[in-house]
Amino acid sequence: MREHGGNLDLAQQRFGGRADDWIDLSTGINRLPYPVGEVSSRAWSALPSRAEIDALHQAARQAYRTRAPVVAMGGAQAVIQLLPHLASPGRARILAPTYNEYAGVLSAVGWDVQEVAELDALAGADLAIVVNPNNPDGRCHAPKDLLALLPRVGRLVIDESFADGVPQLSLAPEADRLGLLILRSFGKFFGLAGLRLGFAIGNAADIDRLAAMSGPWPVSGAAIAIGCRALRDDTWAEVTSERLARDCVRLDEMAQAQGWRLVGGASLFRLYETPDAQAAQEKLAHGHIWSRVFAQEPTWLRLGLPGHESEWTRLGEALERN
Amino acid sequence: MREHGGNLDLAQQRFGGRADDWIDLSTGINRLPYPVGEVSSRAWSALPSRAEIDALHQAARQAYRTRAPVVAMGGAQAVIQLLPHLASPGRARILAPTYNEYAGVLSAVGWDVQEVAELDALAGADLAIVVNPNNPDGRCHAPKDLLALLPRVGRLVIDESFADGVPQLSLAPEADRLGLLILRSFGKFFGLAGLRLGFAIGNAADIDRLAAMSGPWPVSGAAIAIGCRALRDDTWAEVTSERLARDCVRLDEMAQAQGWRLVGGASLFRLYETPDAQAAQEKLAHGHIWSRVFAQEPTWLRLGLPGHESEWTRLGEALERN
Repeated sequence: MREHGGNLDLAQQRFGGRADDWIDLSTGINRLPYPVGEVSSRAWSALPSRAEIDALHQAARQAYRTRAPVVAMGGAQAVIQLLPHLASPGRARILAPTYNEYAGVLSAVGWDVQEVAELDALAGADLAIVVNPNNPDGRCHAPKDLLALLPRVGRLVIDESFADGVPQLSLAPEADRLGLLILRSFGKFFGLAGLRLGFAIGNAADIDRLAAMSGPWPVSGAAIAIGCRALRDDTWAEVTSERLARDCVRLDEMAQAQGWRLVGGASLFRLYETPDAQAAQEKLAHGHIWSRVFAQEPTWLRLGLPGHESEWTRLGEALERN
Repeated sequence: MREHGGNLDLAQQRFGGRADDWIDLSTGINRLPYPVGEVSSRAWSALPSRAEIDALHQAARQAYRTRAPVVAMGGAQAVIQLLPHLASPGRARILAPTYNEYAGVLSAVGWDVQEVAELDALAGADLAIVVNPNNPDGRCHAPKDLLALLPRVGRLVIDESFADGVPQLSLAPEADRLGLLILRSFGKFFGLAGLRLGFAIGNAADIDRLAAMSGPWPVSGAAIAIGCRALRDDTWAEVTSERLARDCVRLDEMAQAQGWRLVGGASLFRLYETPDAQAAQEKLAHGHIWSRVFAQEPTWLRLGLPGHESEWTRLGEALERN
């Protein structure tokens, strides 16, 4: 398995404790999740119906401000798994550094994968991948720059897994343009990564093919029921976006007090440059707070946002320890 | 979408009522499901860890009496979706009539698909598919006959979605033989189809490839938690198997009283020959009981088993109506 956040197993093996003892800041998953509420017995027992799946797609269209075709899948990751099969293998270019699954999944099935540092260098690719805002460094691209790139590539995939807080960045409203495909994650912003729900938004031909590849029942009854409710809850989304914005400032201040420099971030995570990320990770781990380091970038430490006040307190205490 | 059971939307459109008003006997899903219980907040929120997924695999190995490599996916259907990509397209032969997704999924990506009527006619195929016990007619094949076929095909897929009641039929214990791949469904016997959980069991090379294609988080936290609990609950499985066996006899007697002939069946569904299956379906539908008919076989009516006693009463009343 490739290096990922959320690998709390590793934290437990190295530093002890049960999963519940840890504050997992190694991912960009909201730690104050949308309230799950009751799940109906029908959602557990029955095969999801066409009407239920259509209702989820409609809720996603409304939340993501688009009229383009949508298909729900078991997380944005499930869409990534199918990307290599949307076209015959060719040249894929990925704006890097970014989420490592793209390069892994594509090269595993024969794509020629090149990582590039600038948007312009994606031109000429059969398949171009941009994560916007980017994970882990928060780098953002204006919709107009991405649309200008569109005619210069075969297919442009924009992963908007961390775009919930910044709707003005989203190309979802334009997703039915030929060659454009947008990925959205449900689990991160709504804090329900275990539910496994994400969406592809694009032109009818691509969405039909993704739907055919993922089969008649690609998501669970609970994902449909909770997803519909959460995606329609504009009030919760607004309050949450405001809280996350405040919490980013708060975390940046704590990091700055440590002498760490903000490299960038999105509304659910922050990336800091530290003198020694490994040492910083270990220091936090002794307080059972898990963080993300990067083998390729030994100074980078990525932190998700603490949730309840008690978690902020524990983070403050862990940082002050020597 | 291909013709399936569980299409209650269609029943509602044609005969009215809300989903909860209906007794859905159009599938082979146990209507007295395993009790879901509490789902932990961690199961909803966190990405499933490697250790949690490994525990689920171990529970599946124990329940299915095998030591072979296992991978959990979002239903047996999710394994079917990946089958065409386990090898380059070639000649697929399917023992028919059977579950229609196999032919559909394989032919969609360039496999040459042939449906055959006898086990022997599968020989020579690059990919051979046998559903055992078969859906919808309950036809069964002895493990020794299937093992004799194994060296005569490139890959032999045995779909054991309805084998929970008949462990003596299962080839799961032999699943690590080269060329053999076993599919198991969790949702049908445990009555939790909305959970989306199924397994592939096979040799390490095939299971590794399926795992790579389905990505790091192929099933939900709830599926892992509930799946682990249910698969380890031998008492529930035993009591349920015994009840289903009694209920099959009871349903067959009710059908016989209608003059319907038993074609065959498995522990979760029965297939009857009726003078006019469409008319029988409509008669039941007026009592808000949904059943399965087959466009290719106008006399076939498939019924799942009612659950609570009140459902048996309603079925009896619907059958007696003229």
